[in-house]
Amino acid sequence: MELLLLSNSVLPGSGYLEFAVPVLQKQLAGRRKVLFVPFAGVTQSWDAYSDKVRAALASLNLEISGIHDVADPQAALAEAEIVMVGGGNTFNLLKECRARGLLEPIRQAVKQGALYVGWSAGSNLACPTIRTTNDMPITDPGGFDALNLFPLQINPHFTNALPQGHQGETREQRIRELLTLEPTLEVIGLPEGNWISVSNGYAQLGGTHPTLLFRADEPAITLPADHRFF
Amino acid sequence: MELLLLSNSVLPGSGYLEFAVPVLQKQLAGRRKVLFVPFAGVTQSWDAYSDKVRAALASLNLEISGIHDVADPQAALAEAEIVMVGGGNTFNLLKECRARGLLEPIRQAVKQGALYVGWSAGSNLACPTIRTTNDMPITDPGGFDALNLFPLQINPHFTNALPQGHQGETREQRIRELLTLEPTLEVIGLPEGNWISVSNGYAQLGGTHPTLLFRADEPAITLPADHRFF
Repeated sequence: MELLLLSNSVLPGSGYLEFAVPVLQKQLAGRRKVLFVPFAGVTQSWDAYSDKVRAALASLNLEISGIHDVADPQAALAEAEIVMVGGGNTFNLLKECRARGLLEPIRQAVKQGALYVGWSAGSNLACPTIRTTNDMPITDPGGFDALNLFPLQINPHFTNALPQGHQGETREQRIRELLTLEPTLEVIGLPEGNWISVSNGYAQLGGTHPTLLFRADEPAITLPADHRFF
Repeated sequence: MELLLLSNSVLPGSGYLEFAVPVLQKQLAGRRKVLFVPFAGVTQSWDAYSDKVRAALASLNLEISGIHDVADPQAALAEAEIVMVGGGNTFNLLKECRARGLLEPIRQAVKQGALYVGWSAGSNLACPTIRTTNDMPITDPGGFDALNLFPLQINPHFTNALPQGHQGETREQRIRELLTLEPTLEVIGLPEGNWISVSNGYAQLGGTHPTLLFRADEPAITLPADHRFF
């Protein structure tokens, strides 16, 4: 399986998906036909979201179709070389994919060789469940199980910082709550600007920001750059 | 109905629930028998959580029982003078209340005169749904509908600040996503240190921090101190 799971889409002072372009380029291996899944977008139209991604990735010479815009999404998935799942609201993303019967077809497309590219909510969707999303539960997705293409839980946009004086839970406290309920899980705190690339049977960390691994009853582990998860 | 819905439990430089004590005192009206609902607590035991609340409210001379600790929770609810619902993880809170069949008995107790006191997750639970929680979805509560004792959606711990450089959604962006899906909702951005008191048919804002009201397609409204919602 080929997966590229990015924490997020934008870095300070940089354009939309700009840091992702060279990372994605390395994993294309000649693939050009992209099916883009825009359902995490809520406050922008899915057409506008697809156009934004086309513009951001123009230099890669891809052929990007919005899955909301094709006549037969399941047939299009079977032909896609890349399935690309954008960020936004994870609950809306999962709900729409489930309601349209697309979860299993996406899984099958990726298992049969399509490259899965996700950022933020799109990376959450590739995990066993969406229980490590940061998003607001604006809609009930009808169950939290997700694609389970990647075996660990990713927390995208990871930071343990809070706005000054804020008394809410830190991100680590939230992840510790999950690990209390499910002590066998492993959760990756993937900071903005980092990614995980799964290729040729290996899963490797990318990016220069410290990435944390959380397990129940252990202190958080700071992973080395280029860490291999498996 | 009598409700006291606090944004949170702790202010910087102040003890647990310390700012809440005088606010709660004003609304007691002779009530003493408290049934405490600790199910939002995940990384602390429900006994320890109940003890912490007992210690914090000792000066009010209340008689506080944990609902997890009584032989017949439904009978205890029917006799409770105060139902107190603590903060923590809203998903766990709703899941446990639903699994134990306590949602309707809590509603009935409050409708029949018990004072409902909630903070953070406990305030979320009093709303029509938990769709304005900030918490991580660590467990599927089996539907997002909640107690619907208060008619608007509260976002507790409201702040629009992000840690420096962070690229995730602001709280207002998250609330705007919800309002895009459900344009008839009204969402209250209740900052830490503030509360809403419902008494004698009126719902009044308390606390000195700016509180925002969000409606679809309108700029956020900063509510005046002592604003009456109804």
